Amino acid sequence: MNFSEELTKRTGEVQEIIYRYLPEEKGYQKTLLSAMNYSMTAGGKRLRPLLMQETYRLFGGAGKTVEPFMAAIEMIHTHSLIHDDLPAMDNDEYRRGKKTTHVVYGEAMAILAGDGLLNFAYETACRAFLTEPGNPDVGRAMAVLAEKTGVGGMIGGQSVDVESVGQPLSPDKLDFIYRLKTSALIEASMMIGAVLAGAGEEKVKLMERVAQDVGLAFQIQDDILDVTGSCETLGKPGGSDERNHKTTYVTVKGLEKAQEEVKDISNRALETLGSLNEKNIFLEELIRALTTRES
Amino acid sequence: MNFSEELTKRTGEVQEIIYRYLPEEKGYQKTLLSAMNYSMTAGGKRLRPLLMQETYRLFGGAGKTVEPFMAAIEMIHTHSLIHDDLPAMDNDEYRRGKKTTHVVYGEAMAILAGDGLLNFAYETACRAFLTEPGNPDVGRAMAVLAEKTGVGGMIGGQSVDVESVGQPLSPDKLDFIYRLKTSALIEASMMIGAVLAGAGEEKVKLMERVAQDVGLAFQIQDDILDVTGSCETLGKPGGSDERNHKTTYVTVKGLEKAQEEVKDISNRALETLGSLNEKNIFLEELIRALTTRES
Repeated sequence: MNFSEELTKRTGEVQEIIYRYLPEEKGYQKTLLSAMNYSMTAGGKRLRPLLMQETYRLFGGAGKTVEPFMAAIEMIHTHSLIHDDLPAMDNDEYRRGKKTTHVVYGEAMAILAGDGLLNFAYETACRAFLTEPGNPDVGRAMAVLAEKTGVGGMIGGQSVDVESVGQPLSPDKLDFIYRLKTSALIEASMMIGAVLAGAGEEKVKLMERVAQDVGLAFQIQDDILDVTGSCETLGKPGGSDERNHKTTYVTVKGLEKAQEEVKDISNRALETLGSLNEKNIFLEELIRALTTRES
Repeated sequence: MNFSEELTKRTGEVQEIIYRYLPEEKGYQKTLLSAMNYSMTAGGKRLRPLLMQETYRLFGGAGKTVEPFMAAIEMIHTHSLIHDDLPAMDNDEYRRGKKTTHVVYGEAMAILAGDGLLNFAYETACRAFLTEPGNPDVGRAMAVLAEKTGVGGMIGGQSVDVESVGQPLSPDKLDFIYRLKTSALIEASMMIGAVLAGAGEEKVKLMERVAQDVGLAFQIQDDILDVTGSCETLGKPGGSDERNHKTTYVTVKGLEKAQEEVKDISNRALETLGSLNEKNIFLEELIRALTTRES
């Protein structure tokens, strides 16, 4: 099997795990549950749970403790997409070729579906306490998840991004936004994979650095694709950053320099990863593939 | 000291604990952090953390493990107020006599401040893992918090409430909404207090029943005050339920019957509580006071 076939296979397996943790659509709150599942089943690369699982394997993890956390990280990511798309935020009507949640379910229900998914992520991760009561690694993983999602992570980054629309950005502030808005959840993914496999503090820190670079490279590649990609490959109209007067790596440094940086940063991630005794060839190929992707 | 003085004193102590867990307003995400603190410091009865602490004491809890959870439950409650007030939801401009978060900070920042507080609640509760790694009660408490906040609790109740605006409600559905939207967080408060004090499963279940009644009586009293109270005592204009064509206990059963039910339900709560060997006189008085309050 070549890498691309292997990726399809493993992404399918990851998706199957996520689907097992989705709520049943029943009871008076059925509309809410449908709205949550609508966005959870709208496709996507499942990159964060995939990175979590592969990092778990890298450090010899073989059990199922990681599975609720894989679902949880995807729920948090999806929560952020639903709220980012709202009229008061980016006001996007399409994502991944499908209508966004507030277009289908209305704005109030979309706000609640986002809230519901953020909270359901913790509800889902808490299942690991039932299977492993008293395992301190579960508590550590939960703390990483909350920290990287919150004001010092994804939500904090989004708030700075929202405030900065239409304003010139210093390189320092742009880096800050990318690190929080995109890298933080990828850091959570790889750190939690390491923590739950029993890796020590030093190795968890090293994975945080790897993930920060992976996230940065991923986001710059996103900026590049917004300029070079088509609606067909992206599942949404390209050129949205320019229309929204968004400052990105491409507008600040130019397309060519941005493309160079993607390569440099992902090489740095691979070097850091290579300094470990543990090896996971698929994880390395995945990181390489992320920076050459076309969608 | 009479009950009213004692309540003021204990509420002050609870507020001091909550304030210790609020985020520092610094860094690029300062606006977000200010918006979160703006609503957290806007007053309020601090009822949920107060009930949590008193239940903790009821079962002999004397340590500090409960404190991050006290802050967390108030953050979740405040999250729900910020999102409920949004233009897409109740569109309220005032709460507790102060402008609501989206009026002061704009809609996008208010959505993120609500998200930020919901997540910060978990981040804060996770601190208990640091002080007590491997204590399975902390994991149990976290699971209760997530379950009662989520689709089967507060957020689920809010979604049914939103869908029901302007529609006739069956008594069953009205009960469902009250139980999820209001009782669920009060159940979480009293259950977590019991769990962290080391109470067994049976006593935790009993406290869930007590709290469900307390929440129900509290919400019906809210409906009553919306009809009988003034802007001065409520901190917001009265009669909002009528203006918003909301179905409430008062519109369904009439004012007099609603007032009777508040008494019956709170008496039932006190009876259930009285069946325990453990006693907390202040907690009993607090439950009695909630149903005779005028604001």
